[in-house]
Amino acid sequence: MRIDNLQYANWSEKIFREMRAGGVDAVHVTIAYHENFRETVLNIEQWNRWFEQYPDLILKGRWASDVALARATNRTAIFFGFQNPSPIEDDIGLVEVLHDLGARFMQLSYNNQSLLATGCYEAEDPGITRMGREVIAEMNRVGMVIDMSHSADRSTIEAAEMSRRPIAITHANPHAWAPALRNKRDEVIRAVTDKGGMLGFSLYPHHLKDKSACTLEGFCQMIADAAALYGAEHLGIGSDLCQDQPDSVVEWMRVGRWTKKIDYGEGSAAAPGFPPMPDWFRDNRDFGNLEEGLTKVGMSANEVAGIIGGNWHRFYADSFTPEVTG
Amino acid sequence: MRIDNLQYANWSEKIFREMRAGGVDAVHVTIAYHENFRETVLNIEQWNRWFEQYPDLILKGRWASDVALARATNRTAIFFGFQNPSPIEDDIGLVEVLHDLGARFMQLSYNNQSLLATGCYEAEDPGITRMGREVIAEMNRVGMVIDMSHSADRSTIEAAEMSRRPIAITHANPHAWAPALRNKRDEVIRAVTDKGGMLGFSLYPHHLKDKSACTLEGFCQMIADAAALYGAEHLGIGSDLCQDQPDSVVEWMRVGRWTKKIDYGEGSAAAPGFPPMPDWFRDNRDFGNLEEGLTKVGMSANEVAGIIGGNWHRFYADSFTPEVTG
Repeated sequence: MRIDNLQYANWSEKIFREMRAGGVDAVHVTIAYHENFRETVLNIEQWNRWFEQYPDLILKGRWASDVALARATNRTAIFFGFQNPSPIEDDIGLVEVLHDLGARFMQLSYNNQSLLATGCYEAEDPGITRMGREVIAEMNRVGMVIDMSHSADRSTIEAAEMSRRPIAITHANPHAWAPALRNKRDEVIRAVTDKGGMLGFSLYPHHLKDKSACTLEGFCQMIADAAALYGAEHLGIGSDLCQDQPDSVVEWMRVGRWTKKIDYGEGSAAAPGFPPMPDWFRDNRDFGNLEEGLTKVGMSANEVAGIIGGNWHRFYADSFTPEVTG
Repeated sequence: MRIDNLQYANWSEKIFREMRAGGVDAVHVTIAYHENFRETVLNIEQWNRWFEQYPDLILKGRWASDVALARATNRTAIFFGFQNPSPIEDDIGLVEVLHDLGARFMQLSYNNQSLLATGCYEAEDPGITRMGREVIAEMNRVGMVIDMSHSADRSTIEAAEMSRRPIAITHANPHAWAPALRNKRDEVIRAVTDKGGMLGFSLYPHHLKDKSACTLEGFCQMIADAAALYGAEHLGIGSDLCQDQPDSVVEWMRVGRWTKKIDYGEGSAAAPGFPPMPDWFRDNRDFGNLEEGLTKVGMSANEVAGIIGGNWHRFYADSFTPEVTG
């Protein structure tokens, strides 16, 4: 079973076929960066069209069992997520509404301060806000996973502590390996994994040591080292694959509607666009390379199977259904 | 099993308890008269709060099986519907989105011309519109029932003919029995029931012979006569109970935002408000009276059980799931 827990491609039949060619049974796809509720619903409508157009390639993922269904029918289960809480606007009732519509992951902030938490590019991190506490409890209740990939350290640690259910960093790498601002420090990863949460390793070159020139061996050794520190069962893949996107999309991710200026985020004026992917992970067809690479650095078959999909699958099973109360 | 396939009460714990006292296992509730998409979502959020507040009394109904679940756990399953297509605005993609959120019935028009069909108060009825044809097909595909209770005759007959799945008139009575403009002529009822559709009998006094003074025997004899004409299996109850609503609500139903003047609909300047209910059907606790009345006019136990709930239950089972294609 192979699961990629973060992609934001320029979706097409070609990419859906590559998912099948790569044996990817489930993908958590971003359906909102800065979209408000109505705009997010339009993105869901677009996905509904794709599910209707390509019923032999993809299906809408709602529950962990949909991954097995996808696998059994040679399709890919698509799970929805947001990189920002903008889809819930200032209305906590939209958490349940959007969960009903299939949303399974929501980042509490994206680089900037949000109504809920602080983003990793802010100078100050005052931690989880008043509304943030309420939304964390509501996400716990309905079964929407708290994702802190683009959040600041204190906010992330507080979210992990406040949440009654394990949380996730769906796509980032250890800061000690590649000191990007978006990568996570040891104490942040530990706060998440100590409580049963997950870290998904990113293949976005700005998160890699030596960026696009990062080697497969280096990447896999980093994972093996993380397994020793945090436990292999808390690790998975969140490739951050942005396949076939024009550079206008990375600008939308970074700038949204919050500034009239250009913000280069992890890029620069000299390299404002999407960086080229490492040649051993160009797209969904290269999941086999990851499996081989992890095996070569000495991880067991069991550990590799967990990192390539089994751990996310277990996490889905524990996370997507409403909280049992009583 | 007892099902009321149309209510729009001023919901409260009191009413939910009366549903249980009356043994009502499922209610189709109106959640939109003239609301747009976002306003309808706010109404869904309000219902989500009630489901969370009163888990021992009500549950959200999505599928026919939820009626049995409600019955087995001594609760009432609440199914959502719209009296107007306003919640989908001009966006066909919202049909599937709203079905996902639980909507199971949608009227194609409410008294006036809509984007889809003509309402029963218009002078001319040009039939189903271009968008109407598309939306009927989409409602068929996803499993949302076409309801023509407030639509004009030609539009209703065309909808019954165009629809690949049986449609419903959830709340109205035969025009021959009580010649209200909203009640349905023989050929209209026949167009619906001949294709497997359902007629729900209304207890709203403006739809009754002698209005609030209508007798239980007269109402039940009308049902027995309709069973002889259309088949008892196509009949159910859609009481149109508007319990505890202030008169401002009937004004909202009639006027919405489409006029700045007052429109009295089925009322009049002298009697603009909600009329008093007949004394044998005051609220959900009086379903037993209907059962007794139907038995007294000579209907079989089987027929009575069907009209009181079994027929709607069968219709739910046939109607709410996505169309099987292939």
